[in-house]
Amino acid sequence: MSKGKNMLIAQSGGPTSVINSGVVGAFYAALDLGIEGIYAANEGIQGVLKREIIDLKNTDRRIIDGLKYTPSAGLGSCRYKMSKDIEHPDFQKVFEVFDEYDIGYFFYSGGNDSMDTCDKINDYAVKNGIDIKVMGIPKTIDNDLVGTDHCPGFGSAAKYLNTTLMVSAYDCWTYSTPTIILMETMGRHAGWLAASTACATFEDRRLVDRIYLPESVFDLDDFLADTEGLFRENGMVYLVVSEGIKNRDGEFLLSSKSVNDNFGHKQLGGVSNFLQEQIAEHITPRCKVINPGIIQRCAFHLVSARDLNETFDAGYTAVKEAHAGKSGYMVGFERVQNNPYICYYNLTPLSQVANAEKTVPAEWIVDGRNVTDDVIEYTRPLMHGEASIQYKDGLPVFTRLPRKFI
Amino acid sequence: MSKGKNMLIAQSGGPTSVINSGVVGAFYAALDLGIEGIYAANEGIQGVLKREIIDLKNTDRRIIDGLKYTPSAGLGSCRYKMSKDIEHPDFQKVFEVFDEYDIGYFFYSGGNDSMDTCDKINDYAVKNGIDIKVMGIPKTIDNDLVGTDHCPGFGSAAKYLNTTLMVSAYDCWTYSTPTIILMETMGRHAGWLAASTACATFEDRRLVDRIYLPESVFDLDDFLADTEGLFRENGMVYLVVSEGIKNRDGEFLLSSKSVNDNFGHKQLGGVSNFLQEQIAEHITPRCKVINPGIIQRCAFHLVSARDLNETFDAGYTAVKEAHAGKSGYMVGFERVQNNPYICYYNLTPLSQVANAEKTVPAEWIVDGRNVTDDVIEYTRPLMHGEASIQYKDGLPVFTRLPRKFI
Repeated sequence: MSKGKNMLIAQSGGPTSVINSGVVGAFYAALDLGIEGIYAANEGIQGVLKREIIDLKNTDRRIIDGLKYTPSAGLGSCRYKMSKDIEHPDFQKVFEVFDEYDIGYFFYSGGNDSMDTCDKINDYAVKNGIDIKVMGIPKTIDNDLVGTDHCPGFGSAAKYLNTTLMVSAYDCWTYSTPTIILMETMGRHAGWLAASTACATFEDRRLVDRIYLPESVFDLDDFLADTEGLFRENGMVYLVVSEGIKNRDGEFLLSSKSVNDNFGHKQLGGVSNFLQEQIAEHITPRCKVINPGIIQRCAFHLVSARDLNETFDAGYTAVKEAHAGKSGYMVGFERVQNNPYICYYNLTPLSQVANAEKTVPAEWIVDGRNVTDDVIEYTRPLMHGEASIQYKDGLPVFTRLPRKFI
Repeated sequence: MSKGKNMLIAQSGGPTSVINSGVVGAFYAALDLGIEGIYAANEGIQGVLKREIIDLKNTDRRIIDGLKYTPSAGLGSCRYKMSKDIEHPDFQKVFEVFDEYDIGYFFYSGGNDSMDTCDKINDYAVKNGIDIKVMGIPKTIDNDLVGTDHCPGFGSAAKYLNTTLMVSAYDCWTYSTPTIILMETMGRHAGWLAASTACATFEDRRLVDRIYLPESVFDLDDFLADTEGLFRENGMVYLVVSEGIKNRDGEFLLSSKSVNDNFGHKQLGGVSNFLQEQIAEHITPRCKVINPGIIQRCAFHLVSARDLNETFDAGYTAVKEAHAGKSGYMVGFERVQNNPYICYYNLTPLSQVANAEKTVPAEWIVDGRNVTDDVIEYTRPLMHGEASIQYKDGLPVFTRLPRKFI
């Protein structure tokens, strides 16, 4: 079977501020390399299965360009889990669609699960002797993919969380009333986002007093004793907790009011309410909760220019490498040095990335409630630079890709 | 008694992104007019009573200039309520401090309560034949002061809320799963902030479906029936509720988990949790809450340049008018037209401002759950322009005034 002449790209998993930049990068690489059809699937692999295919090349170029400056997943996303078994009929169906649209290149942007899907699609092609090049483009604010120094989306989320922490600390300095501030970050299994908040400083002193990560066991009694000590001593206390912290029995800490999602999973995001209740009961009612929730993954107004540009380049590189014959890899970053920041692209076999998880190194965690300066050195360069955002009537201008299927 | 040669300025009430800009404006007016000593009181009128006086003229000018680009109240603030009776010994004490520091001009920046304090201080001076000029500088994101078209801080908070609404709507468009988003805004008695979110649009269509203001009675059954109808019809529903909405009996709607503050008042900010519980019970568990809390009043990264500059000018104008002999007024804004936006300064007697409250006009409210386009025309020009913010290591650079007392 001769190789298809078109490319197909899709997005998967939770959106970020910069994920669209990778699509735009891939688009321009395909243009530069003369790939004939440049297609996108609506809402991830689900859109492939449903034959919901969008023609990017024949889309108004201003919309494509605007996508780079638009948060969230412009192509739509899904949380559909493909089977681990490539004999599952889904895979055959995916390749029927590839064949129908003469796809020679497939690109999938997402986190661990998406890299697994990508890997299986590559396996299927290899096993069945189908000449299609398959590449993964990393994306997750959780920053927990292996095979890469960091993940697109993380630097922007870190910039948002640190800025939010700074302005809220300033807000609380307004009064001399002793106050505990408790900020909750995303990060179900890896504490990179919570850890990143060590970057917020004033005159080289960190603003955050304690950072609790899912990498360490969370003991409520220790937490309350430590917080009370800080409160009595300093008056103002700033705590950051990851949504994913767990007790000794491996259970999440949830407010009694936490609600279940559609799949019957307890939705995370309740830990700050739970801890606020505990602090009110045992220490002081003066506890303010800051829970940015989904805003931390889509606050384009605080996007890191470096993150935005690196993501564009990751998309571009994925297409370039696939066009040169590579398949079955995820494009990643390899940092050479920090001052000045130098970073190269690398390729890691998807099989090594799929379903693995990179957590905050144990040696960067102090007493289960703080982090070393390594975290600051690691995170700072990733927040670098501000994107030039277009505003109209005082509000940012975003774009939206029409979901017209061919 | 001859007139004092120095000025004293203080900040009161909740902080905003731009309140410091008014202080910097007042500072530069005093410099320009040759007022000898330029002093600030720490933490509002409380700092006056405690003789905590800061010498701004002898403070590093880079710190003063940096304050314009720093959120929150750089001088500190208080919620101390002065007596309504000027025979109360507090007033005598305030004037002893004025005398001690040879104060001829007093400026107070804040909301309704602060304008009342300011008014009483002016009354005391008039009654006792003391030649001191007293002026109020408005400030409140709630936008509820009378005698002015709008209040410093409101435009920036509206810009933040609308941008947050936009990015969160984009985030939710990622999936085709039907979802209700519920954003809670500040505004205990006046719904300006909630109403302002009508500005967020995509291709001229508003993103928010319903806006619930404290100006209208909130009926839970109607709310649930209406929301369920929208959810069944549209899939995605965006609701905005003011923290101050009340039921038919005039009671706030609070989650059972709401905590009391130091004064035994129920802290507001629980209504979104309460409504999320109700929606989960009656409609769908797919309800996301966005509760920016204090961030909406201090998100300097989304400050409105017009708001920032107008606040500077309000501070400048207050000093200029006091120096010209005026006393007992609040500086306000009088809007002439929107396109192009033209706005003049006006002076309103403090006695008219004190303790009055300006709510959203009834004719701008539709069926108790939406607003007319008048709100958009009113709010848009106030969000205009972006401030040039200095960043270092990817994070905004703020300053902090040393609290050294003379």
